[in-house]
Amino acid sequence: MKKINTSPISGMQELLPNAQAVFDNIKTKISEVYHAHGYIGIETPTIDRAEILFAKAGGDTEKQVYKVFKTAETADEADEALRFDHTVPLARYVVEHENDLNFPFKATQIGRNFRGERAQKGRYREFYQCDVDIIGRGSLPIAYDADVIATLLDAYKGFLTTPVVARINNRKIVSGLIAALGLVEKSADIYEIIDHAEKVSPETTKKSFEEIGLSENEISKMVAFTNLHGNREHVVSNLKNIKLDNEIFLDGVNELDEVMSLLEAQGLADNITADMKIVRGLDYYTGTVFEFNLPEHKEIGSVGGGGRYENLASNFTDQTLPGVGGSIGLTRLFFVLNSNNLIDTTTGKLIDYEIVPISENENGFALDLAGQLRAEGYVVDVVLTDKKLGDKLTYAAKIAKNGIVVGESEVETGKLKIKNFETGETSDLELV
Amino acid sequence: MKKINTSPISGMQELLPNAQAVFDNIKTKISEVYHAHGYIGIETPTIDRAEILFAKAGGDTEKQVYKVFKTAETADEADEALRFDHTVPLARYVVEHENDLNFPFKATQIGRNFRGERAQKGRYREFYQCDVDIIGRGSLPIAYDADVIATLLDAYKGFLTTPVVARINNRKIVSGLIAALGLVEKSADIYEIIDHAEKVSPETTKKSFEEIGLSENEISKMVAFTNLHGNREHVVSNLKNIKLDNEIFLDGVNELDEVMSLLEAQGLADNITADMKIVRGLDYYTGTVFEFNLPEHKEIGSVGGGGRYENLASNFTDQTLPGVGGSIGLTRLFFVLNSNNLIDTTTGKLIDYEIVPISENENGFALDLAGQLRAEGYVVDVVLTDKKLGDKLTYAAKIAKNGIVVGESEVETGKLKIKNFETGETSDLELV
Repeated sequence: MKKINTSPISGMQELLPNAQAVFDNIKTKISEVYHAHGYIGIETPTIDRAEILFAKAGGDTEKQVYKVFKTAETADEADEALRFDHTVPLARYVVEHENDLNFPFKATQIGRNFRGERAQKGRYREFYQCDVDIIGRGSLPIAYDADVIATLLDAYKGFLTTPVVARINNRKIVSGLIAALGLVEKSADIYEIIDHAEKVSPETTKKSFEEIGLSENEISKMVAFTNLHGNREHVVSNLKNIKLDNEIFLDGVNELDEVMSLLEAQGLADNITADMKIVRGLDYYTGTVFEFNLPEHKEIGSVGGGGRYENLASNFTDQTLPGVGGSIGLTRLFFVLNSNNLIDTTTGKLIDYEIVPISENENGFALDLAGQLRAEGYVVDVVLTDKKLGDKLTYAAKIAKNGIVVGESEVETGKLKIKNFETGETSDLELV
Repeated sequence: MKKINTSPISGMQELLPNAQAVFDNIKTKISEVYHAHGYIGIETPTIDRAEILFAKAGGDTEKQVYKVFKTAETADEADEALRFDHTVPLARYVVEHENDLNFPFKATQIGRNFRGERAQKGRYREFYQCDVDIIGRGSLPIAYDADVIATLLDAYKGFLTTPVVARINNRKIVSGLIAALGLVEKSADIYEIIDHAEKVSPETTKKSFEEIGLSENEISKMVAFTNLHGNREHVVSNLKNIKLDNEIFLDGVNELDEVMSLLEAQGLADNITADMKIVRGLDYYTGTVFEFNLPEHKEIGSVGGGGRYENLASNFTDQTLPGVGGSIGLTRLFFVLNSNNLIDTTTGKLIDYEIVPISENENGFALDLAGQLRAEGYVVDVVLTDKKLGDKLTYAAKIAKNGIVVGESEVETGKLKIKNFETGETSDLELV
């Protein structure tokens, strides 16, 4: 009988062994793809100085950060906290180790981050982020934005059974348009309306533009712009046709054109689309922005994203460090895929061979045999309980694909039989 | 110029990319060995209820635990904290998910734990523990103790370049001896003296026994016992020769005999030794205890250990859950191996091929070529900077083993040359 509540605290993922194995496999596959694309694994501490973490946070983020204490203090005095993303620790890492790194520095971080937000379905307080970032010193050509997008697409393809598409935009296009229309002081509101356009009806979007005081003409331009999406040629030619004489706007269009062209050159045309609705809420993105969606499962929404930031570590150093990065929020994604039956977490026994000694006398032989099978690359376990043979076999069949019974005669003759628990078939074991 | 202190907080490990790669490789190897031995990976939240974590802690451990807060509170009111080991969350996990697990349940946990102890060289406040545990329901045969020790030995052999030895004891032997000598009320002191015997001179140990009031005769018995170590036959026969009529003592000797016999049956005789000095400080071990040492580097001390606990989760449930577990403290071990030059963290470029487009016009071709090489299993990166060719090649040679220059003629003819940056040799690239 349970004496106390042993459930994990709310907002935490805790999986049963088979689901955990599927989760871990996905994490490993993502990591392998990131490394294959030349990103170097780094790991920063979970706990960092509050002054580092809060240098960039503020607002809601700061409220959500977990502060840590060792002795009785109040939260106001706390000078250490749990990291809430990988970007801030990356900035600290790059500044701290600048002289030991080669730039452009391509880094990947896969680990747990923490936000103490109100727990709700599919939202986690502790969650895995799988990040790639490329940091330049002084400058970083736009071509690297394509590198990040291609890498993430490759990572998704490693475990998804449904197509994935990167929806790409460039914030310079939006901000250039806003500037050309003379709406700079309404910039923050406009970004927010575009960011929400997908979640509300076209009427609501129109009304929102009205409410911030845009004219009929401005609204129709903004609505047409927000709805523009499609392949590179379609979107780029439409944008160029606007004939907007704004340098930032044209710069953004050219960058979008180049990033998408480089992705097409890698055979990724079917996995990319330009979409003016993608602006990404975060303030620090300054150029390319992108989000990944599953077109056959639109209800799932974004499964990851990222973008370009002109200066990673302006709070920590005078050195200009432009970067581009992207992230897969694996904990949430796993939950969503799982609840949409897009991954199978029920099947798959993790043990190849379960060796079943008939009595204790065969335990030593069984353990030695297990070592030989492991040397051949198999996952092998030995039933060492003192139960009846029938009980041992029941246990073996539950957790393993195959069983090998070892009794006196097997030890004597060395002749062993494998029972396949799925088919019931028996075959001779031949050791290499 | 740096604006603020960007070093990680003291007591945290933060590695440069090459050292991180070596660290990650070791972690992966340990995980692979654990899985090959039939241990199933589980992962518990970093943050847990204080009432769960403190159920077993107390004393120094409780003082070292990091408490976490989201809003202004004092530490006394905190009801959540960071886990300080894997054993307490495992106990919670097993009780919570009991009906979904198969017993004996063989679990592995590899992750970060936290202790806010005073930072000192080689001691970390955040550290990786690589654990294996086997939990029984009601009972768990002693043979499983051998399973854990064999698994850890196999894991060490996967990355150590120096021999490793498991020093094995059984606390029933010590406690039986103490009972037979009528010294039960001095039990805690005696355990502590034995535990420290290795770190002090024989005279100091003798004096310590004197100070707690042992007679000349008792001291000579305890000293002789403490010094007893060697192979199974030697130690077991010596212990049996004491002819101590105490059931617990005899039980301990037989268990030690069986555990070591099962390890010998797997060809591990050279990697094990019986040693009465090993008692392990922790209160909750009740039978087998073991510690791993590197005989050629005695100065390093223990590199891991574990033991048998009769009841994993007595604070959480009335169900008896005996277990045996072991752990490699990877963060400390990595530091120690590194500072003793037992691993090489300086060499090894992580990128197989760096593709160097001469101008931006070749970027697309280069990215596509990179994809083809990745499909063959290589780690491939493309230099996308707008620097001069010489600068691009310098960068490539720094981070990659081989370089492939792509210019107009290469794009036209498809004929590509690989330059090995280590040997300076050039060869033709042949795509499969």
